[in-house]
Amino acid sequence: MLRKTSIDPLLGRTNQSLYGSGSANLVDTFDDLPPGIGQYEDFHTIDWLRDIARDRYRHRQILKKRQDSWLESIKSAHDAWSGWVCVLLVGCAAGVFAAVIDIGASWMSDLKEGICSEAFWLNREQCCWVADVNSTFNEKGCTKWQTWPELFGSSGKGAGDYILKYIIYIFWAMLFSTLAVMLVRVFAPYACGSGIPEIKTILSGFIIRGYLGKWTLIIKSVGMMLAVSAGLSLGKEGPLVHVASCCGNIFSYLFPKYGRNEAKKREILSAASAAGVSVAFGAPIGGVLFSLEEVSYYFPLKTLWRSFFCALAAAFVLRSFNPFGNDHLVMFYIDYNNPWYLIELIPFIILGILGGLWGAFFNKLNIMWCRYRKQSTLGKYPISEVLLVTLLTAVLAFPNPYTRMNTSELIKELVRQCGPEDEDDLCNYDRNVTDMMAGISSAPLGSGVKRAMWQLALALIFKCAITIFTFGIKVPAGLFIPSMAIGAITGRMIGIGMEQLAFNYKEYSIFKEMCSAGHTCVTPGLYAMVGAAASLGGVTRMTVSLVVIMFELTGGLQYIVPLMAAAMASKWVGDAFGHEGIYEGHIRLNGYPFLDSKEEFTHTTLAADVMRPRRNDPPLATVTQDSMSVEELESLLRETDHNGFPVVVSQESQYLVGFVFRKDLTIAITNARNNQDGIVSQSIVYFTSHVPVTTVAGGPTPLKLNKILDMAPITIADQTPMEIVLEMFRKLGLRQTLVTHNGRLLGIITKKDVLRHIAQCHHQDPEDILFN
Amino acid sequence: MLRKTSIDPLLGRTNQSLYGSGSANLVDTFDDLPPGIGQYEDFHTIDWLRDIARDRYRHRQILKKRQDSWLESIKSAHDAWSGWVCVLLVGCAAGVFAAVIDIGASWMSDLKEGICSEAFWLNREQCCWVADVNSTFNEKGCTKWQTWPELFGSSGKGAGDYILKYIIYIFWAMLFSTLAVMLVRVFAPYACGSGIPEIKTILSGFIIRGYLGKWTLIIKSVGMMLAVSAGLSLGKEGPLVHVASCCGNIFSYLFPKYGRNEAKKREILSAASAAGVSVAFGAPIGGVLFSLEEVSYYFPLKTLWRSFFCALAAAFVLRSFNPFGNDHLVMFYIDYNNPWYLIELIPFIILGILGGLWGAFFNKLNIMWCRYRKQSTLGKYPISEVLLVTLLTAVLAFPNPYTRMNTSELIKELVRQCGPEDEDDLCNYDRNVTDMMAGISSAPLGSGVKRAMWQLALALIFKCAITIFTFGIKVPAGLFIPSMAIGAITGRMIGIGMEQLAFNYKEYSIFKEMCSAGHTCVTPGLYAMVGAAASLGGVTRMTVSLVVIMFELTGGLQYIVPLMAAAMASKWVGDAFGHEGIYEGHIRLNGYPFLDSKEEFTHTTLAADVMRPRRNDPPLATVTQDSMSVEELESLLRETDHNGFPVVVSQESQYLVGFVFRKDLTIAITNARNNQDGIVSQSIVYFTSHVPVTTVAGGPTPLKLNKILDMAPITIADQTPMEIVLEMFRKLGLRQTLVTHNGRLLGIITKKDVLRHIAQCHHQDPEDILFN
Repeated sequence: MLRKTSIDPLLGRTNQSLYGSGSANLVDTFDDLPPGIGQYEDFHTIDWLRDIARDRYRHRQILKKRQDSWLESIKSAHDAWSGWVCVLLVGCAAGVFAAVIDIGASWMSDLKEGICSEAFWLNREQCCWVADVNSTFNEKGCTKWQTWPELFGSSGKGAGDYILKYIIYIFWAMLFSTLAVMLVRVFAPYACGSGIPEIKTILSGFIIRGYLGKWTLIIKSVGMMLAVSAGLSLGKEGPLVHVASCCGNIFSYLFPKYGRNEAKKREILSAASAAGVSVAFGAPIGGVLFSLEEVSYYFPLKTLWRSFFCALAAAFVLRSFNPFGNDHLVMFYIDYNNPWYLIELIPFIILGILGGLWGAFFNKLNIMWCRYRKQSTLGKYPISEVLLVTLLTAVLAFPNPYTRMNTSELIKELVRQCGPEDEDDLCNYDRNVTDMMAGISSAPLGSGVKRAMWQLALALIFKCAITIFTFGIKVPAGLFIPSMAIGAITGRMIGIGMEQLAFNYKEYSIFKEMCSAGHTCVTPGLYAMVGAAASLGGVTRMTVSLVVIMFELTGGLQYIVPLMAAAMASKWVGDAFGHEGIYEGHIRLNGYPFLDSKEEFTHTTLAADVMRPRRNDPPLATVTQDSMSVEELESLLRETDHNGFPVVVSQESQYLVGFVFRKDLTIAITNARNNQDGIVSQSIVYFTSHVPVTTVAGGPTPLKLNKILDMAPITIADQTPMEIVLEMFRKLGLRQTLVTHNGRLLGIITKKDVLRHIAQCHHQDPEDILFN
Repeated sequence: MLRKTSIDPLLGRTNQSLYGSGSANLVDTFDDLPPGIGQYEDFHTIDWLRDIARDRYRHRQILKKRQDSWLESIKSAHDAWSGWVCVLLVGCAAGVFAAVIDIGASWMSDLKEGICSEAFWLNREQCCWVADVNSTFNEKGCTKWQTWPELFGSSGKGAGDYILKYIIYIFWAMLFSTLAVMLVRVFAPYACGSGIPEIKTILSGFIIRGYLGKWTLIIKSVGMMLAVSAGLSLGKEGPLVHVASCCGNIFSYLFPKYGRNEAKKREILSAASAAGVSVAFGAPIGGVLFSLEEVSYYFPLKTLWRSFFCALAAAFVLRSFNPFGNDHLVMFYIDYNNPWYLIELIPFIILGILGGLWGAFFNKLNIMWCRYRKQSTLGKYPISEVLLVTLLTAVLAFPNPYTRMNTSELIKELVRQCGPEDEDDLCNYDRNVTDMMAGISSAPLGSGVKRAMWQLALALIFKCAITIFTFGIKVPAGLFIPSMAIGAITGRMIGIGMEQLAFNYKEYSIFKEMCSAGHTCVTPGLYAMVGAAASLGGVTRMTVSLVVIMFELTGGLQYIVPLMAAAMASKWVGDAFGHEGIYEGHIRLNGYPFLDSKEEFTHTTLAADVMRPRRNDPPLATVTQDSMSVEELESLLRETDHNGFPVVVSQESQYLVGFVFRKDLTIAITNARNNQDGIVSQSIVYFTSHVPVTTVAGGPTPLKLNKILDMAPITIADQTPMEIVLEMFRKLGLRQTLVTHNGRLLGIITKKDVLRHIAQCHHQDPEDILFN
């Protein structure tokens, strides 16, 4: 049976059957359509199969027209290239936004402590660079940078000045966070939080209008700078994924192929989220794998290649801005190349276990706290909550240098190796200064390291506690950096412990090899790196992408085995306490209709147990193919709010013919009533291709609606196990499926029914699933 | 409806319904089954949905039993861990095999030229190391290594000796290739070729018994060493994927969870192929992406993580053996870090275009030649063909140093940067020896480089020509290394050209920046690397995995943009001449039933156009649910050879009830005839759960077969577009689907029908599809 093209009087446009000789198609003359057709309403689930079929049809039309004229062949080329152009634009935009946010956040963070006296728009590092271009950057000797007490004419030393600094620090922190929360409240409520749970939900085929809009983009970017500068225990890495996705959404509207097709748009959004991670960590491959593993749902191989291109473009643009002041893309680049020994796998795995425990603990408490916020009156005072958390953070963080500094600066410090010239506390070893090699070999702890250990322990407790209450407040807030910091502190402490153990017992056989060659016995910075990976893994339950991101940070195959060992231990220990990562937890908490493709469904229910109508429900609202009048259909549309209706041979037999969408039916009937002669309430509606002549002769003009009938709805037998139904929903991206028995229609299963059923199987409240 | 357990008298075993209350289930008491049940025949397609359902059922049984005793909980833990243990073993085995093959091939390659006089088991490099441990390795000064003329008492110089060397070289080459081809012919015919097309087919759900067996493993490993040592223009990288997959298959039999379930086994095989690439290039991440992008079909995220673990284990084991004599895993590690300039993107993209052209050209000619071999008498003399190719290769390769050396050695040479101490032809620049910096800065060409350029040009022509005839001969033969070599030669030549251009016109503004700082203007080795990537991309059409493998070889983000640019150009240019990579080409040539998940189906046919029976065919053989006798069923089984039969309500109505597999039906009837009283030829067979009492009273004992009925076969409407049918076949891994219209059975579509239809749409002979 071949396609046929005809003018459809009902929908007032050229219609060519998409699903065969008599079914709905809303593609070809898109511009002529009444507004809203082919689009989805807010908080609705998209139908992947339908959208992809629409795109294929559009593509075929373009191929067909290509021979017609050179204009058409340019259009065709434009269409073929538009995906690449779009991801290139998205990548560049993500890179620019990341650079602006990095520079802005760095300037505002430094503003809490002082200002560049000659050029206020420079941050401390740049200020000192400009002041003395020829010398290497030296913090101590920088004269142009003035702390606030110095600016007010004080010496910058003494107890009074300390209190002044303390107060000014708190003032700025409160100012920044007030601004951040007000901006979010007033302009873009969607800009709060990390955004990854929502992006996962959107990518799985759900519509949240405005979530990826331009206001969200702007407010999220500004709010992120403010929130990070306020010194809150949050990071800007997760939100960068949201920012990049906003870019993806906005640019996709330049290309109707993507902007007007929700399924295709998600290809761009997948690429955009890869670019987001790429700029956050300077890890393009890790970004692509993150997109593949963590956030994406529909990820054909073509998208993989484009995502990679997008991530690379973003990284390249960011590097051109050079916000970190070095040639490397990454915030905490590791430049050491020390070997590690098999025996060290024990502390690495211990770090993994600790990371897993921390992840499970954090996820449970954070979700509990967020649930409490939702259900109690606390949720009504988001601004007060943010201010309270900021005040608490600022008051507690200032006295400890490791919490006062930027969290990403802290991680940088922790993963670093002590060089011969380093003089800070963490590198204060009792070295034999006359020995040439002493600068890098292991040595007993100095008083500085001991002090640093105490301060790190306090910082660890503080960070652990405050992060639980911070993630979820109504400012843009990422979780990557705080959880990495917690892991890095633990790692560094264990690393220093191992170092001293190996140094003090270096004659023992197990440590002999490690300390023999006069170099550092143990690299505590590596432990910090592994700890950061373990902790991040415990919280998010990332696997491959985590290891690859860390691999790209360290830039060598050498440390991939320790990282893998820690990531595996962390994932397994975390999973023992519950399979959900923090993002899945928040998805469930918020009741987003997300069908997890990783979760295994182990129950033995059948489609018949899940479908509606249930046993005692009224029967399913169906339409017959050739016996219902216009009036009957109109009353059906009034009385029900289903998204569509199955069409059956007759009410008695219930043999399934097809499916008609509510929207199409409404438009078709309205159009026919207005434009077609002889259509009255008593007109019989025919969904068949042949209208019997006798009927035409007898009663009023019949209404032929076979064009809007989808004659190929996906159907399953009532005895199909739910695990197979689930597989079909996931892999084919269904919105609903019809259930039949021996060809007779029994019921319908929608994505919402599936989600409810899963919630029920997990002994959760199925009514938590908010939307469909 | 809940499961019920009962003793099934027909199949003589406990049976619990898997597909609901009355359908087939062959899982629970696997050991009691008649042999062959639940397994597939050779050259058959597997049913993914069914296999995965079987595995889930098995898993549920284990979970249920877990509480019973501590033995069961150990079993359950063993089951949970077995996947990880299995991939660990596979990874280690792949690493060991790769190491043995590397060492063996290196020893035998050197054997063509000489032997270590004191320890014949050492290759040249090791021989010289052992001889003079304290000095650094110096080829010239090595006394223990003796060329054959030297061993025969000659000086090793002069024309006579040259001819002697020539003859000995040809002798060894012929000997090795004779051995290789004889071994393959006699012991394991499946060991020839690259193996990747077949592994792709197997992973897509096809059974080729023995293709991944132990004999294939052994013969492929030995044959690969011999073929590489014979100096043929082939590599061992592709075949390493085959070797690793053999390990995967063999080890999976240690774990019944994988060994007895073809769908689950493919998870192990996916991981194994990742390990294969990982050891071939020392690129674990690239290996995983290769497996994901190129070979795998069913790749859940769990598999991604396991594949990564497997690839890493393999790389780690290989590194412990240290076959390349350095700390790096990779054959051609790049240790330079020179910057590249935006203007250089032009030659990089030109290299990409050349790579794409070469790929398209090679694929076309190689497929043509292989088709000629298949269809002509040439195919009957595989041994003579191998010997002829070897003779030709050896005779032509010996005079040119760049073709005489190992191909991977050649690539190593080409991607290298010239250091101040290098004295070989490629580094023979006219340098100002008094200048300290002269060793690394650019300089005019010396006579050595000019000679090298000529030799490289000849080598390029030779390699291009001979590779077309070599890939496809009946010895283990990979394509990665030869195609990379071709690209690397082109790249190095263009690189040297660019270098001279930039050096001679360094005052021009476009070159000014490049040559200003006194360092090398252009790094010709980088061009070789980019060229190698472009050429490999053109031949195989890999994308992300190619860039990632190259990225892991070079070990820095720095060169990822040039590599990406070349890979994209190469892929686009190649695709302009045909979308097929070489592996897809060979799959089609051999008629394997491979349903490509990358290829887009753009035709507008419907399920009704593809299903059987066709318009003038006899009707579909169906079984009725309650009116056929044992005799009728037996004659149906005799007269048809279908794999299964749809069950309908009655022959008149054709309303679909379910599907019954031929194998199950045969076994059930045979069993009933033998074991059940009162079953005679006239017994009516019931597929319903209720047998009407009247019938029982009247005639002979009825035979109840509702247990073997699959009541939930996948069905589609006849108006379903083929692109959606294809999507379902790909994503759900179907073996067949039933086609209905308004609930009535119309026909059936099998995977073979789909493949035939695709072939027809591409104007190919549909009868080329050999198997089903």
